[in-house]
Amino acid sequence: MPLLLVAAAALIDPHDRVLLAQRPKGKSLAGLWEFPGGKMEADESPEQALVRELKEELAISVDAGALFPIAFTSHRYETFHLLMPLFGCREWQGTVQALEHQALAWVEAAALDGFAVPPADRPLIAALKRRLPEF
Amino acid sequence: MPLLLVAAAALIDPHDRVLLAQRPKGKSLAGLWEFPGGKMEADESPEQALVRELKEELAISVDAGALFPIAFTSHRYETFHLLMPLFGCREWQGTVQALEHQALAWVEAAALDGFAVPPADRPLIAALKRRLPEF
Repeated sequence: MPLLLVAAAALIDPHDRVLLAQRPKGKSLAGLWEFPGGKMEADESPEQALVRELKEELAISVDAGALFPIAFTSHRYETFHLLMPLFGCREWQGTVQALEHQALAWVEAAALDGFAVPPADRPLIAALKRRLPEF
Repeated sequence: MPLLLVAAAALIDPHDRVLLAQRPKGKSLAGLWEFPGGKMEADESPEQALVRELKEELAISVDAGALFPIAFTSHRYETFHLLMPLFGCREWQGTVQALEHQALAWVEAAALDGFAVPPADRPLIAALKRRLPEF
């Protein structure tokens, strides 16, 4: 079964709210909320992939050094196995815009459970809910 | 720069001690202590890689379902970038034996800092030290 490597980011604002993004119509898992990020290209580090994807998806500039590890998920979907490290980030340049997503939401830890997320993301949501202020 | 994917395991005994293994002489980072595990082969999930490696390195049988995510590290070494998810595991069959390492040690959280580990592993040691009882 192919391994899919995806790097994801939890952008955290000064009020400890996390950015979730709604997957576009017509894509797999459409309408579900996810952390921004995307597939790591061959020989790309997760940080490099995120810098690129956050620019493409949200129109923001992030320094690789501002990304710090939070947790990871390893999940078997039907046709591939997903390995997805989640980085936190509190610093970026520019204003987030939904260039590829249906909608964006800044979400407090206590409100995270109200957003439908892909199965692989559930443990990441749980980790954030439990430990958000420490990041 | 090539990406190296390594799956690692923190075996945790009933006294909340973690297994560290000393890297063999003649290998890179010889003498340093690490979490057992190893390189993920092409299209192997991290869990599959760990089941295989824990058998080869420690002579124990682990069920993939007994592995749970703890933390990950992403570290740029001189000639490659390492992405290493660390799984916890409290259940296995067999007695651990050092088939490939110089030595093994069962280490309490408070004693983890006394072991010299590769630079990439330091944040994982810190995460375990802080949160071991919750796993």
